[in-house]
Amino acid sequence: MHRHFDELLSDLRGSLVRMGGMAEAMIDKAIRSLLEHNAVRHDEVFREEQQVNNLHIEVDERAIQILALQHPVAADLRLVVMCSKIGGELERIADQAVNICQNTQALLGQPPLKPLIDIPLMADLARKMLRESLDAFVRQDAALAQQVLDSDDALDAFKDQIFRELLTYMMSDPGTIPRALPLILISRNLERVGDHATNIAEETIYAVQGRDVRHHHEEQKR
Amino acid sequence: MHRHFDELLSDLRGSLVRMGGMAEAMIDKAIRSLLEHNAVRHDEVFREEQQVNNLHIEVDERAIQILALQHPVAADLRLVVMCSKIGGELERIADQAVNICQNTQALLGQPPLKPLIDIPLMADLARKMLRESLDAFVRQDAALAQQVLDSDDALDAFKDQIFRELLTYMMSDPGTIPRALPLILISRNLERVGDHATNIAEETIYAVQGRDVRHHHEEQKR
Repeated sequence: MHRHFDELLSDLRGSLVRMGGMAEAMIDKAIRSLLEHNAVRHDEVFREEQQVNNLHIEVDERAIQILALQHPVAADLRLVVMCSKIGGELERIADQAVNICQNTQALLGQPPLKPLIDIPLMADLARKMLRESLDAFVRQDAALAQQVLDSDDALDAFKDQIFRELLTYMMSDPGTIPRALPLILISRNLERVGDHATNIAEETIYAVQGRDVRHHHEEQKR
Repeated sequence: MHRHFDELLSDLRGSLVRMGGMAEAMIDKAIRSLLEHNAVRHDEVFREEQQVNNLHIEVDERAIQILALQHPVAADLRLVVMCSKIGGELERIADQAVNICQNTQALLGQPPLKPLIDIPLMADLARKMLRESLDAFVRQDAALAQQVLDSDDALDAFKDQIFRELLTYMMSDPGTIPRALPLILISRNLERVGDHATNIAEETIYAVQGRDVRHHHEEQKR
């Protein structure tokens, strides 16, 4: 029976890795459409969100089947419950890609406010955090997961910097407000991608070290 | 054994209801501090967030113990997994109360921009959605859960209305931007409270009707 459990768990992990790869590509497409100032990739992103949603349902069904048929205990049990949670985080990351597309659409009728430097850098960092958090989960690598938690401060710093810069544009010329606000919102979408990656990393550390750091990181930040 | 399972599940539900009550009170305190233009309740909200975090850990531990010791199947199994997910949603609602406090702090050095009408109404609706989603879950009432989903459109309409109104302030006088932006962000915090309540309602309908509506609502909205 244990052999069988390992195979089922491995399938489950495979679905999560597939979801993660799709979510990362969606963020990339959404940001590229922002940089290129068009919506040609948006329908693709919207379709992919449906696929991610379907994968999430599949992950949950598989997890529940494993629990029902295999009765895993201890670490195995925690791992299955964790897979279901990670599926939820990945689905929400995909939602953020959709939100970025929607915020980009608010910009399309207007000339670009400025060349975008920080937002693509912030997006790269958010995608790296997503990738590393899933790698850390698959390899059960607490050190890599910790690196993801550490990156979250850099992501927040990007968000603050983008906000301050856009605020100066808006204050000196209120005509820029409709072009600045969607960029502020997009930086917050990326911040949330990082939050979800952080959740995955925290769950991973929790599982690996058998102690709960899920809220420790938040306490440190306050 | 089944008697024992019912008791454990009832304890688990009790913890969720306690978490939900705390999260709702936190949102109320955060919004009242915004309306009264002070931070006297903020430390309390920050302390309560820690308590909600601890309750979430407790909920997860109890859920995993039930799975490990009782091996529930079918609907019972889904219910236990669902409790763990709902704990996650409630914790995130509590996070939003903290975010509202932080956004309020950005306003405190400045005179109020305008009398706030829509934000407290929006907060009332978000809290009602939270309360009803948990009631629906506890009573396994799919009709009440559907009501929560229906309310989400009204919450979005509030958000859009608040955004448009504050945009006119900012456009006509950029000096108001530092007072308008935190209010926009607070309306988005409340929108997210509604999103989490919606997630709880969708899980409830899913559990009750045994069919998956989790993504159906999103498709309708697009």
